[in-house]
Amino acid sequence: MVEKDSHLNRESENHETLYGVSQETIRELEKTLEEGNKDAVQHLIAPLHAADVAVVIEYISPQLRDSLIEILRPQFDPYIFTHLNEIVREEVIEQLGTRDVAEAIGRLKSDDAVALIEDLEEDQQRKILEYIPLSDRVILEEVLTYPEDSAARLMQREIVCVPNFWTVEEALKYMTKERNLPEKFYDLFVVDPKHVPIGGVPLSLLLRQPPSTKIMDIMLVDIKKIPATMDQEDVALLFQKYGLVSAPVVDSAGRIIGMITVDDVVDVIEEEAEKDIMHLSRVTESDFYEPLLSTSYSRIRWLLITLINTLLAATVISQFQPTIQKMVALAVLMPITTAMGGNAGMQVVTVTVRALATRELGMANMSRAIRKEVLVGLINGIVFGGIMGTIAAFWFSDPALGMVLGGALVFNMMWAAVWGVILPILIEKMGMDPAISAGPFLTTTTDLLGFAIFLGLAWFFLI
Amino acid sequence: MVEKDSHLNRESENHETLYGVSQETIRELEKTLEEGNKDAVQHLIAPLHAADVAVVIEYISPQLRDSLIEILRPQFDPYIFTHLNEIVREEVIEQLGTRDVAEAIGRLKSDDAVALIEDLEEDQQRKILEYIPLSDRVILEEVLTYPEDSAARLMQREIVCVPNFWTVEEALKYMTKERNLPEKFYDLFVVDPKHVPIGGVPLSLLLRQPPSTKIMDIMLVDIKKIPATMDQEDVALLFQKYGLVSAPVVDSAGRIIGMITVDDVVDVIEEEAEKDIMHLSRVTESDFYEPLLSTSYSRIRWLLITLINTLLAATVISQFQPTIQKMVALAVLMPITTAMGGNAGMQVVTVTVRALATRELGMANMSRAIRKEVLVGLINGIVFGGIMGTIAAFWFSDPALGMVLGGALVFNMMWAAVWGVILPILIEKMGMDPAISAGPFLTTTTDLLGFAIFLGLAWFFLI
Repeated sequence: MVEKDSHLNRESENHETLYGVSQETIRELEKTLEEGNKDAVQHLIAPLHAADVAVVIEYISPQLRDSLIEILRPQFDPYIFTHLNEIVREEVIEQLGTRDVAEAIGRLKSDDAVALIEDLEEDQQRKILEYIPLSDRVILEEVLTYPEDSAARLMQREIVCVPNFWTVEEALKYMTKERNLPEKFYDLFVVDPKHVPIGGVPLSLLLRQPPSTKIMDIMLVDIKKIPATMDQEDVALLFQKYGLVSAPVVDSAGRIIGMITVDDVVDVIEEEAEKDIMHLSRVTESDFYEPLLSTSYSRIRWLLITLINTLLAATVISQFQPTIQKMVALAVLMPITTAMGGNAGMQVVTVTVRALATRELGMANMSRAIRKEVLVGLINGIVFGGIMGTIAAFWFSDPALGMVLGGALVFNMMWAAVWGVILPILIEKMGMDPAISAGPFLTTTTDLLGFAIFLGLAWFFLI
Repeated sequence: MVEKDSHLNRESENHETLYGVSQETIRELEKTLEEGNKDAVQHLIAPLHAADVAVVIEYISPQLRDSLIEILRPQFDPYIFTHLNEIVREEVIEQLGTRDVAEAIGRLKSDDAVALIEDLEEDQQRKILEYIPLSDRVILEEVLTYPEDSAARLMQREIVCVPNFWTVEEALKYMTKERNLPEKFYDLFVVDPKHVPIGGVPLSLLLRQPPSTKIMDIMLVDIKKIPATMDQEDVALLFQKYGLVSAPVVDSAGRIIGMITVDDVVDVIEEEAEKDIMHLSRVTESDFYEPLLSTSYSRIRWLLITLINTLLAATVISQFQPTIQKMVALAVLMPITTAMGGNAGMQVVTVTVRALATRELGMANMSRAIRKEVLVGLINGIVFGGIMGTIAAFWFSDPALGMVLGGALVFNMMWAAVWGVILPILIEKMGMDPAISAGPFLTTTTDLLGFAIFLGLAWFFLI
């Protein structure tokens, strides 16, 4: 088993350079860029996939990045944008300038163009749209009227629609002739005369039919039509749940207006999980490439919550200064209550936030979930209250002190469990993101209550 | 803007029931199950997708679940297994028994069968494999010799391969005739006589070619071959980076042995992000459906780390009991140092862990990342040291106390920043998972150092 694993690890290391750019290539590029040898740089970049050029642009230092962009400018591959980290992308767009960026966007698929434009600031958007030819611009502007993070923003307008009375042969002939098809597609959508999708035919199914077969006889009617205003998180859950590869997007009248393909959904899944990870640890997303000062600022904003939290806790403790003076052991033990309560609470918050995000937790099983967490909190409170109480009793040769610590722990861990599951649910019901606010709220209460209960019990029973 | 958003929210609520099972359906099913009306239950279940039946099984109470499984047993859809939460799945498998489960597995695609079997315990695996027909069993057993979480475990054996000298017409004819093709596929793989993949043809490209076109003239040679031993996380990154829909899996001799499709990768992305989320908050994955006591146990295991951490911290504080007795304000302020250091540290750990997981952070930009985090830590340390020091100085009318708190904060937040970025990198280099261990390690040091530095400085300068 050990051998197999180490084998896997060794191979994994090679895989890092199996595809993509090796560290050596990056080093070589850096050297060539420093020397200012344009031809050599182009020679090194040429064989790379747009995704790998994006990696190179991200990895190298800002100075070298500027020279590289200038070298790439005349034939800038617009798909590099779609793979760039948001912050680096903004810098590249700044450097290339409105006209060149607009020209590059014109060469993108409609969904990629929208993804790029929607992240820009409004006046930058307007300037770039001005440079884009009218026919493309109208399409982009229409999509931009839909809310951010909606299905419409993910979709591409290029689709393949056929009527249900066609035969397989007619559909195949249409696809060979028609030049205005999407570059890649996986399903034909079958529409009625009003352009309402009524079925789908996966290409792998179409290919295996005799030419005279009627489309209506082979089409799958169990297709998942996606309303243009559906939230991208729901789109991602839909694709994931039903294993979709592409799905039609419909407007409010039910007419097909585009399709979403799985590659866009993969990015959404990653993005949404990333958001939850970052918010639960109180960081803003994607700050790896953010400049120093703006990283510092965004971290400070979140740490201010901790600051207020700890100041409140300090105020609570300060009420018990005479008590602590009489019994310094309290100062030694008091961080235990808050640390255990805070950590136990974050466990429950994390599980609940994720269960809500993946729809594992819904109205139907909510009361069962709450009941379970309360019981787990009670059990764990008793376990740790017992352990810590016993340790404290022996440590300070004071059984009463042990009982006070134990009691405070049971109470605080129960509290953390109850509110750890209820808070995220309440916050979500209020239409806010529980990943952002449930944690800080809960830790504030476990801190304040932890100190108050422990020191209060001590003041009442021990002094 | 507000109106648009509320519109989106209202629509989102409907989307929840647009596809999948509504709460009403679940309530109705629960009632019917309680009444023991088998026909009515089957009537309610029949129109549901396997993924939705899985949701029902997860949502209803364990008692009703048992009755539902008995009703479904005669025609159990094996794809329900692939959508079930791991823990619930185990219970269902237990209830159905070896023979019925083996029979159901025989009806699954090879990749889904492997996914199901690999999660079972060894003797259960053996028992179920015994019931599976020899030809299928050999394939399953071969795949199971590859390491867990490797590409081979994700692949399906059913693929479409064509030689490069065929024409489009020949390929199409082969696909119409051959009955042993995968149910869904998106690319033809072009292989040489040794079965080494040399190219790929997306179906949407194939369809638009004149019949006489040679496969070798249209095939894309830039295909990403996936070694069977590649880690699933790397497979997922590859699909995501290059927007793949399917890719060939090759053995150590480079021969094609299967393919991985994007739907499996979507699950891996979700799974890997989930692992990181849970581990960073010190919980085990997927414990939403775990039984009470085993949830309690798995939470306790992680909380023991916090317990040891806080006991060590208490030991540090206890060294300073005489100092605290002389100046109780220290007890009031000391949690501030550790809370700020701990939270600032977790921010850096989270960003670093994710940047490592998504390969945003690599050898090439490591030193730049470390330098940046140290500077951010220094800036934020000075900001919060300044704020808190000033507050403390005025609160207790003691400028020296303010300076001690400020100094301790600067030091602890710097420490958190430096080790917050270095620890995950070191842990990953040692071949371990930084999401699991970096956080607890770091918080232990910020706690111990936070108390030690603050109380130590106070003892030295103030007493």
